[in-house]
Amino acid sequence: MSVTMDQIVAHAKHRGFVFPGSEIYGGLANTWDYGPLGTELKNNIKRAWWKKFVQQSPYNVGLDAAILMNPRTWEASGHLGNFNDPMIDCKQCKARHRADKLIESALEAKGIEMVVDGLPFEKMEQLIQEHDIACPDCGSRDFTNIRQFNLMFKTFQGVTESSANEIYLRPETAQGIFVNFKNVQRTMRKKLPFGIAQIGKSFRNEITPGNFTFRTREFEQMELEFFCKPGEELQWFDYWKQYCEQWLLSLGMKRENIRLRDHSEDELSHYSNATTDIEYKFPFGWGELWGVASRTDYDLRRHMEYSGEDFHYLDQETNERFIPYCIEPSLGADRVTLAFMIDAYEEEQLADGTTRTVMHLHPALAPYKAAILPLSKKLSEGARAIFEQLSQHFMVDYDESGSIGKRYRRQDEIGTPFCITYDFDSEQDQMVTVRDRDTMEQTRIPIAQLKDFLEEKIQF
Amino acid sequence: MSVTMDQIVAHAKHRGFVFPGSEIYGGLANTWDYGPLGTELKNNIKRAWWKKFVQQSPYNVGLDAAILMNPRTWEASGHLGNFNDPMIDCKQCKARHRADKLIESALEAKGIEMVVDGLPFEKMEQLIQEHDIACPDCGSRDFTNIRQFNLMFKTFQGVTESSANEIYLRPETAQGIFVNFKNVQRTMRKKLPFGIAQIGKSFRNEITPGNFTFRTREFEQMELEFFCKPGEELQWFDYWKQYCEQWLLSLGMKRENIRLRDHSEDELSHYSNATTDIEYKFPFGWGELWGVASRTDYDLRRHMEYSGEDFHYLDQETNERFIPYCIEPSLGADRVTLAFMIDAYEEEQLADGTTRTVMHLHPALAPYKAAILPLSKKLSEGARAIFEQLSQHFMVDYDESGSIGKRYRRQDEIGTPFCITYDFDSEQDQMVTVRDRDTMEQTRIPIAQLKDFLEEKIQF
Repeated sequence: MSVTMDQIVAHAKHRGFVFPGSEIYGGLANTWDYGPLGTELKNNIKRAWWKKFVQQSPYNVGLDAAILMNPRTWEASGHLGNFNDPMIDCKQCKARHRADKLIESALEAKGIEMVVDGLPFEKMEQLIQEHDIACPDCGSRDFTNIRQFNLMFKTFQGVTESSANEIYLRPETAQGIFVNFKNVQRTMRKKLPFGIAQIGKSFRNEITPGNFTFRTREFEQMELEFFCKPGEELQWFDYWKQYCEQWLLSLGMKRENIRLRDHSEDELSHYSNATTDIEYKFPFGWGELWGVASRTDYDLRRHMEYSGEDFHYLDQETNERFIPYCIEPSLGADRVTLAFMIDAYEEEQLADGTTRTVMHLHPALAPYKAAILPLSKKLSEGARAIFEQLSQHFMVDYDESGSIGKRYRRQDEIGTPFCITYDFDSEQDQMVTVRDRDTMEQTRIPIAQLKDFLEEKIQF
Repeated sequence: MSVTMDQIVAHAKHRGFVFPGSEIYGGLANTWDYGPLGTELKNNIKRAWWKKFVQQSPYNVGLDAAILMNPRTWEASGHLGNFNDPMIDCKQCKARHRADKLIESALEAKGIEMVVDGLPFEKMEQLIQEHDIACPDCGSRDFTNIRQFNLMFKTFQGVTESSANEIYLRPETAQGIFVNFKNVQRTMRKKLPFGIAQIGKSFRNEITPGNFTFRTREFEQMELEFFCKPGEELQWFDYWKQYCEQWLLSLGMKRENIRLRDHSEDELSHYSNATTDIEYKFPFGWGELWGVASRTDYDLRRHMEYSGEDFHYLDQETNERFIPYCIEPSLGADRVTLAFMIDAYEEEQLADGTTRTVMHLHPALAPYKAAILPLSKKLSEGARAIFEQLSQHFMVDYDESGSIGKRYRRQDEIGTPFCITYDFDSEQDQMVTVRDRDTMEQTRIPIAQLKDFLEEKIQF
């Protein structure tokens, strides 16, 4: 039986993974705070990404650019001009709609297929009239005009709220990479192909955020911009597409819950010659986790035009001069955290007729790698010593309250892969019982081998 | 000879630690982007903090709350009402001053000591008149009126820019912890004393940011809120003060560059019964790294008043009910990164009369733990194999261009503690030469022992 969103939201809240943001004040739109265990899970995911995309990659280096950027950046990237949603309100019930989506689904119901996104507002308003489109919420035909709504959060830097001081919260981390292309290439003495990876917060003033942490106005991205020679981009596009999918699989995500969806010709951005979404089968349907796009030289070229900086690259072997092409695998940190939680969640029927809730998280991702459980409070000295030893290397939990069975269940619920029980024999033989979360099998292991045992298990 | 800020800024830029933000567009006020090596350094510092303050602590758990919070939060915390600077402009030269600081230093020059901060604006304007205070930049006495300037960045959530949609970028991470006190305590079944730790971005619209990454409008904090029983707070205050100082020392920060400065009676916030700043000796003077404050029950009490939530804690042993007291050690991630860079930087006179630039970073903090250097390009296969093996566990560099001497110097400049040279003997004996950055001594080590060798060195 597959998990519902309600189950995941409730589990996340009650087990310390994700709390509603500003909950004591009634929340704030669709904001969420990661609790102690969600923070560990998300940090582990970010580290796992960094490990494979930076640390182990012979090509890539990292970057951590500011959220606040010079507004010219957003002119060059097109976000100031084009990053808009056409918005329309129902005057009757006050429901707010994206006009293009409203029209498209009304026409679809009539069997008419039409791409409305990108049409002028007058044309959209005309379509609403012509096809007598009603508010899907209340049936009224009394709409406001369509207004343009820029998705960037605006703020003011400095003292006065004048337009000269207008700045924006970045809507994506990618542009921080592009503007630093030359700085990174020069200081790291990089030759093509090479990539620049970044993890950080971005902000989009979505009209309708929702589906828990899937679509939030504040979100975190893990982006790679990989630069290569023009003509080699489709090879690298395939390379990174595979690399990304492999990363998900190597961390235990189920193959049947992942699909790759290539963008069709008319779905492609005008500058992209190939784009594939890696999607996950969420309880509410397939949703994008990772967009992998071949973006040609669009971004560097635009920044050259707007800044006057020269982003040409001289290939010293062939003496060719060109603007590098770019492959962008862009992953949502919150989305992939949600996907890993859903993928791992199980309400398992046991042989004895009882049910246990268990999160089958990969040990590399599990908030705690192990829990140290003294069989009796009298044994806490020896058990504490194990906590102190292992906590130098891993996040481990320590729990001495309740029966062993109850403690096992609690650890199952939060995805701890190993429970280490310290019993009265342990004091004598310096061995402990290690119980496996998934198989529930128990093995006796010398305390001195615990570190190596866990270290091997967290490899991926 | 001690380092100047100009040297550090230049070194940071040229060696890929810190670039000016949005540089190709002429920058944006005092924003900075961490380059590939600065990103690794800062990440290592954040991990080292998390390791000691969360992973190895028997008391603390982590949290990762949203930057955007319900505005009621800032009413309760006092940031909406009181987080203001009194601002005054010189009409002549347009210089902007904090009125209180302007008056205080003018009076100080006359031998008058007076606390101006907190006086009504009319009183301040009167003082400027009475004492005939001039603009320190141009000497003019023609000022604007004093205006109140709130330090929070304001933005609008949702579609219209009405005051109902006004929200703020958090000016500190602390409040995300306080509002989640109950959520964390309940889900983690925590008993007092316990703490909640958080790393994240905060934003303050400082009138005069400056000193490189020391004071920036966008900055990152590493904060702990540690909750205890009233009456025990001063003991815990001492505990955390020591713990924080020890953390800096254990990562190699020089004792002579650190001092603890207790706040005097009239410097203390009205709710604090003890505050100590851990300061670092920057090239521009002593500056705060870490504020350690005993905040009584002020924050939880305010949030109780504003939200109606009950933050009382029931001590099950004594059956007492009370609002927990709180100790807050709050560390600036950017500041401490800058301090570690300054502390590690040396232009060393060598015995042969030459100079080398070297960063004596603790191996736990160094961007690369080791660099793998094949003596000849013919040896790249074996050297690459070492890179592949070690990069599973550590950030390591690989460099095969230039003479060995030049490569050593490059690694010295970026603080790599160990250079691993793979030579023609290595193929036969499976040994490599490990050169120590600080002593420049070389030792022959079996390849199979490299992992354990490095792992031991990065302990702190």
